[in-house]
Amino acid sequence: MNIDAALAALTTVLGQRLSLSKSDLDLHGSSETHFPLTPPDAVAYPQTTQEVAQIVKICAAHHVPVIGWGTGTSLEGQAQAFSGGICVDFSQMNKLLRIGQADMDCTVQPGITREVLNTELRATGLFFPVDPGANASLGGMTSTRASGTTAVRYGTMRDNVLGLEVVLADGSVIHTGTRARKSSAGYDLTALFVGAEGTLGLITEITLRLQGQPEAVTAAICAFDDIDSAVRCVMDTIQIGIPMARIEFVDAATAAAVNSYAGSNLPECPHLMVEFHGSDGGVREQAESFGEIVADHGGKGFEWAIKAEDRTALWTMRHNAHYACMASRPGCRAIVTDICVPISRLADAVNETRADLAAHNVTGPILGHVGDGNFHAILLFDEADPDEVARAETVAHRMVTRALDMGGTATGEHGIGIGKLRYMAAEHGPAWDVMGALKAALDPHNIMNPGKLVPPRN
Amino acid sequence: MNIDAALAALTTVLGQRLSLSKSDLDLHGSSETHFPLTPPDAVAYPQTTQEVAQIVKICAAHHVPVIGWGTGTSLEGQAQAFSGGICVDFSQMNKLLRIGQADMDCTVQPGITREVLNTELRATGLFFPVDPGANASLGGMTSTRASGTTAVRYGTMRDNVLGLEVVLADGSVIHTGTRARKSSAGYDLTALFVGAEGTLGLITEITLRLQGQPEAVTAAICAFDDIDSAVRCVMDTIQIGIPMARIEFVDAATAAAVNSYAGSNLPECPHLMVEFHGSDGGVREQAESFGEIVADHGGKGFEWAIKAEDRTALWTMRHNAHYACMASRPGCRAIVTDICVPISRLADAVNETRADLAAHNVTGPILGHVGDGNFHAILLFDEADPDEVARAETVAHRMVTRALDMGGTATGEHGIGIGKLRYMAAEHGPAWDVMGALKAALDPHNIMNPGKLVPPRN
Repeated sequence: MNIDAALAALTTVLGQRLSLSKSDLDLHGSSETHFPLTPPDAVAYPQTTQEVAQIVKICAAHHVPVIGWGTGTSLEGQAQAFSGGICVDFSQMNKLLRIGQADMDCTVQPGITREVLNTELRATGLFFPVDPGANASLGGMTSTRASGTTAVRYGTMRDNVLGLEVVLADGSVIHTGTRARKSSAGYDLTALFVGAEGTLGLITEITLRLQGQPEAVTAAICAFDDIDSAVRCVMDTIQIGIPMARIEFVDAATAAAVNSYAGSNLPECPHLMVEFHGSDGGVREQAESFGEIVADHGGKGFEWAIKAEDRTALWTMRHNAHYACMASRPGCRAIVTDICVPISRLADAVNETRADLAAHNVTGPILGHVGDGNFHAILLFDEADPDEVARAETVAHRMVTRALDMGGTATGEHGIGIGKLRYMAAEHGPAWDVMGALKAALDPHNIMNPGKLVPPRN
Repeated sequence: MNIDAALAALTTVLGQRLSLSKSDLDLHGSSETHFPLTPPDAVAYPQTTQEVAQIVKICAAHHVPVIGWGTGTSLEGQAQAFSGGICVDFSQMNKLLRIGQADMDCTVQPGITREVLNTELRATGLFFPVDPGANASLGGMTSTRASGTTAVRYGTMRDNVLGLEVVLADGSVIHTGTRARKSSAGYDLTALFVGAEGTLGLITEITLRLQGQPEAVTAAICAFDDIDSAVRCVMDTIQIGIPMARIEFVDAATAAAVNSYAGSNLPECPHLMVEFHGSDGGVREQAESFGEIVADHGGKGFEWAIKAEDRTALWTMRHNAHYACMASRPGCRAIVTDICVPISRLADAVNETRADLAAHNVTGPILGHVGDGNFHAILLFDEADPDEVARAETVAHRMVTRALDMGGTATGEHGIGIGKLRYMAAEHGPAWDVMGALKAALDPHNIMNPGKLVPPRN
């Protein structure tokens, strides 16, 4: 790696849009979770695909790592530059380029955030449904195969990206997918780049599937005596086939944290939060059927939020639950776990996690997208207490091992980054080597986000 | 390639389950459409994944091509053995291995057909929704990324395969995906093998997403004065967000062919056939909304088929439309086109195709999955009339070129095989070379279904 020559060439291309300032480097070397600071050598702010291609060509010539950056909200250290290199910050490539009203699709640049996108779409009657909570960039969401509260109805980024423009490791530009709704024309390259965490190329344009804003929306929160009742309520709802738009779980500890963080007065017990989308009649019918299942499981305090502002309050509370949990113990750090199991094993997985937390004396509020079998325990620890750190790590490790034993995955939606790399061999077996072979084929000099996702190269 | 040594080794493994009979070779060298006979050197009938791995290892050692075979219903010559080699017929690996009732999934061997699978699932209240018409094998459907009449609601094979067991080109066995509903753990290898047409490995097990049998189902057929009204009715229905389970189009020529083939008495004009799935109330509501749109577009003779036998008759008629078109001109052969365009361009694409058919004096009934923007013209020709062959080929070529110009794809669901190979460069540009690089990485000796899908190797 010849970083000085690369920086000189990059400055020629980008001028002031290549930043070497310490504050900028530190910002782009940080993460929202527990990873140490690993600043890149420079931060590039391209404005066009062509500039991205030039950046990658320069980095390829000098064997300098290239790491994409959206909003820095990833949770597994995906954008940490631990071999140095150039961080490509897409904040100046943040436009909604095209809306296809009749085709219910749009094309965006990677730096646009989901909140900005939905604000720009509002007048069209369309919306982009994937909602990971954080106001993430679409490039980051695509690269992490993000999902969140609405995946139970609308799918993950896997299901909502129709096509991509990608700058490959040699600086060449390809387009994947078409604007047709389906295709059988060869390998599904779109799916290969979705979730690749920038290890195969940098995404410079994304064509997204949009949804029509539903005629009617209704949401509710209800309380349960115990976790088991809440989880079994979810499993029954799925079995019966009620088309939920969201179904979220928070445990008693999360409810307590939300109360102190947001001044709400939830009963300190497990809750489900649900939302239905459809026609007036359809939503009413769904809500009634769900209400019966809730009653069967002893759910209480069940109230429908029909008005938009009440629903916004409900989902803001849910989205802030992560920050509420962090704030429940000032100065702490957190390991945010992200296992996803077959629905049939969900109650077991949650209960055994609770037992682990108790046995290891770890504080870990649990919340998650239970309609997908995906939940998070936010394992809080004091960095200065090595024993507590070790206990939190033990619980995190046991959660992943249990998920894999149950036929599930180490990560439902947060991705691999640094945090889950150690589980790839166990989850994929020899298929992990296939990932390594694909990476080597497309990035022979290992410059695209090196050290992430695939097996270390010999 | 040392075929004699390979055959000797394969006989040791398979005994009588390695067939060299001429009738067997010819059967496995034929296709349902217009491709010439290209028999393999032998047909293998494995019964286990381990036997498949042994077959591939032997073929790898002797550089002998390996071509998978399901039911032989592919339409683009996907299984033609034009470099010879071993055809691996999965008809003896046709079991439903596992049903996950609570998880609404199952695992099958590749040789099971979709009709057998759904018969075996009947008692569970679950069904597998993807329906390409032909009673294809699940292995073939997976490898072709098939879809069909229900994709508008339930998606294609891309959306309904959760995981795979695959024998790679070196005979090693990998597992992709998990039994969780979603995962962000690395490259989406499942999506890479779905639609790869056997060029990256042989699929030996498939985990499928299942659906709950809907509480209520209703279907209808209605006639329109012209193609434009029918297509615009579809476009409006999609815009309004009515969740159709199927919406199919047949033109006047197809209706006429169906009448003579099946003795029905459809008016000889364009038709839409639709089906709704849901609760009693939901289906009623959808049917009413759709009825209003049909009326706006002058649709007539609109009658709901609520009884299962009436629906079966309706969809049998639709599924037989392909054979009815073929039978409309005895002794003819056909090029079955398969373009898919953005919905906004659907009316243009159909109308311009009609104009082409007239201008080139080609008989080509049109039918298709219009909810996806996907339709087929079945271009009939007399093999002995070179001028007619050339005119049919011209229309087929113009259809694909037009689809690509409209932002669509050469193939919505039939795949590439031999028939669409010539369009891959135009559709994918430099991304086609990326497919070639992936193929070379996973199959360095080019033994897996060589000559298909990727660029010819130098």
